[in-house]
Amino acid sequence: MLQGKILVAQGGGPTAVINQSLVGVVLEARQHSTVTGIYGAMHGVSGILSEDFIDLAKETEANLELVGATPCSALGSTRDKPDLEYCQKIFKVLQAHEIGTFFYIGGNDSSDALRILAEEAANADYPLRCIHIPKTIDNDLMINDHTPGFPSAAKFVASAFAGVNQDNKALPGVYVGIVMGRHAGFLTAASAGARRYEDDGPHLIYLPERVFSMDSFLEDIKRVNARFGRCVVAVSEGIHDADGTPIVTKLAKEIEKDAHGNIQLSGTGALADLLTDAIKKDTDISRVRGDTFGYLQRSFLGCVSDVDQREAREVGARGVQFAASEDRDGSVTINRVGDYAVEYRLDELDAIAGKTKIMSDDMIDPSGVDVTPVFMDYLKPLLGSNMPGAYRLEAPKVAKVLAG
Amino acid sequence: MLQGKILVAQGGGPTAVINQSLVGVVLEARQHSTVTGIYGAMHGVSGILSEDFIDLAKETEANLELVGATPCSALGSTRDKPDLEYCQKIFKVLQAHEIGTFFYIGGNDSSDALRILAEEAANADYPLRCIHIPKTIDNDLMINDHTPGFPSAAKFVASAFAGVNQDNKALPGVYVGIVMGRHAGFLTAASAGARRYEDDGPHLIYLPERVFSMDSFLEDIKRVNARFGRCVVAVSEGIHDADGTPIVTKLAKEIEKDAHGNIQLSGTGALADLLTDAIKKDTDISRVRGDTFGYLQRSFLGCVSDVDQREAREVGARGVQFAASEDRDGSVTINRVGDYAVEYRLDELDAIAGKTKIMSDDMIDPSGVDVTPVFMDYLKPLLGSNMPGAYRLEAPKVAKVLAG
Repeated sequence: MLQGKILVAQGGGPTAVINQSLVGVVLEARQHSTVTGIYGAMHGVSGILSEDFIDLAKETEANLELVGATPCSALGSTRDKPDLEYCQKIFKVLQAHEIGTFFYIGGNDSSDALRILAEEAANADYPLRCIHIPKTIDNDLMINDHTPGFPSAAKFVASAFAGVNQDNKALPGVYVGIVMGRHAGFLTAASAGARRYEDDGPHLIYLPERVFSMDSFLEDIKRVNARFGRCVVAVSEGIHDADGTPIVTKLAKEIEKDAHGNIQLSGTGALADLLTDAIKKDTDISRVRGDTFGYLQRSFLGCVSDVDQREAREVGARGVQFAASEDRDGSVTINRVGDYAVEYRLDELDAIAGKTKIMSDDMIDPSGVDVTPVFMDYLKPLLGSNMPGAYRLEAPKVAKVLAG
Repeated sequence: MLQGKILVAQGGGPTAVINQSLVGVVLEARQHSTVTGIYGAMHGVSGILSEDFIDLAKETEANLELVGATPCSALGSTRDKPDLEYCQKIFKVLQAHEIGTFFYIGGNDSSDALRILAEEAANADYPLRCIHIPKTIDNDLMINDHTPGFPSAAKFVASAFAGVNQDNKALPGVYVGIVMGRHAGFLTAASAGARRYEDDGPHLIYLPERVFSMDSFLEDIKRVNARFGRCVVAVSEGIHDADGTPIVTKLAKEIEKDAHGNIQLSGTGALADLLTDAIKKDTDISRVRGDTFGYLQRSFLGCVSDVDQREAREVGARGVQFAASEDRDGSVTINRVGDYAVEYRLDELDAIAGKTKIMSDDMIDPSGVDVTPVFMDYLKPLLGSNMPGAYRLEAPKVAKVLAG
């Protein structure tokens, strides 16, 4: 049942298409005459606490379309993780505003917040319907074949590595690019997305699904450099040693943690600098460069997969449809049912909330430093129809006149 | 006169459109029946020394078009700066291969190499015609209104800041983005290119044209943060103190220099980390993040200004036309003659070689931390016809029920 007012909010890290899901919710909700109001909470659950709502029924469709095509949470976001007291305050506000259904667009932390909220609502006998709309560039939600936001971020990372591979071919040396991803290596693995020729980089890919060893890392680089005269390396910010300790903490003076207890990995170039310093120290390679792709991966204006755009809109709209047709809480999931086709389902919040999916073994090369054709088959359709390619001159060599 | 074989090479840092200029040279040269061969030197002048040539006459037009749309020097590049001995070796090779005209696509270091080469050729009475084709994301060539490569890099930086501005609005705090540019601040200034609303970031822009003071920097950030509750900052990697010492050297343990004596500024996150550490130490702002845009600025696949693409093709083609119609060495320059229209001219190598253009005072706000409308008028047409925009929700607030 979809009755009374609905509330929509966005949580966690922004993505390039998170506003498509918001627009999907709003436009679909307008089709339902039982919906008496469409509110948006600013800055996720924190905006509910402060009663910071806007009246999305008053948005024009034209402006909604412009916002849909704009990266990052238009409603603002939050890293707050509600506890019982927080949830009780939320009920009070939702009750006062007569909210019947709450759509929370977010990742596993956000879905966990929604799960707690749904439980507390049930305990308090408050008639609240909670629908989770998936998003995360980390691509780490259970059940989902992939999550909205990942394909566009993957397109960014693939495009970045296709470019730096050309740069590295032009001015050879070692290039290390650090990619977002704490536990799941999907986005780092997407660095292989635009490889075309056999010697295209990234030549080495370090994922958080495998234990990182500095010794092996340096040996790997020397081996690739000896073979190709250059080496492009993709590294997940979440790489860790056998104890699970993130490599970046070996350097960082102060460890910053968020409300979910996660160590802050992004927003610093420390890991790239640590790795390039080690390479410079251990090899005689003169040109060693490191970049950290940082927040551009999830926010860059104009780098969007059209598949992602479409699906992000759809999970928002389907969330409203499920709320109307099914009398239960849940999380909208994307399920691959063809090559390439997907089906949207409503799964239990418990199956998604707070859980993390990582890359399966068949996606990771036995060497531990590359992806498999299984992963490439998985990734390619997600990059969309307008993924550019990098090409080479094919002209033959001119015979030397002086030398030889 | 354009007679005999021509040779084309690419030098310095790659750009997103440097291959358009290469393709412009090759396709235009094919129109001239007096041209008996079209060679490409691999890795700039260093490939001439090693007689590492490919026969570009054997490239299909279809593949040339694919390569033209691919970022970074397809012929490879070099940082070599030829001295007299180097030049003498080059003559020997050019003579052996009967090269009549040498087109060197590059920035001010490359044009300086060409100037030396042209002088040595004249001294040695060797009939070599030297034509410089401009490119540099730094936009720092004299005479030129702007240089091929800059508009696409500017589009990247503008798109990046438009995105991180949205991200920073969603999750407020301080964000510092480091942009390439040693002496000229054009690319850092381009961070303002996609600002739309009055409170859009970047709120502060630090250019190498102005002396950097850490105290003022911290005061500026506190002021902006007090006003907007957040602060997005664009910083040129070339910022320096009153003595001209780059700020990054205050931290870096080892200073790496290239063959031109330039201190290595890119390929490390050190400056961003230095600045964000200072902000964290001096303020109580909890969320402080820094990114270094690095090599993505000049190589990212798929971020190209269509104006840049067109002009880069044109400077290559015009170079060949000038070589055919004018009996002198020179550098092809882009001159703005309308809003928006340009004219291509052949200027003296001496006027370009080794010289650096910086931003004019009327492009920099008197505050020293922003750009002026003069700069925005200059920049906007360069970003091209397909520059996306970032939009906001316009819905009104819902009246609070509980609070107040």
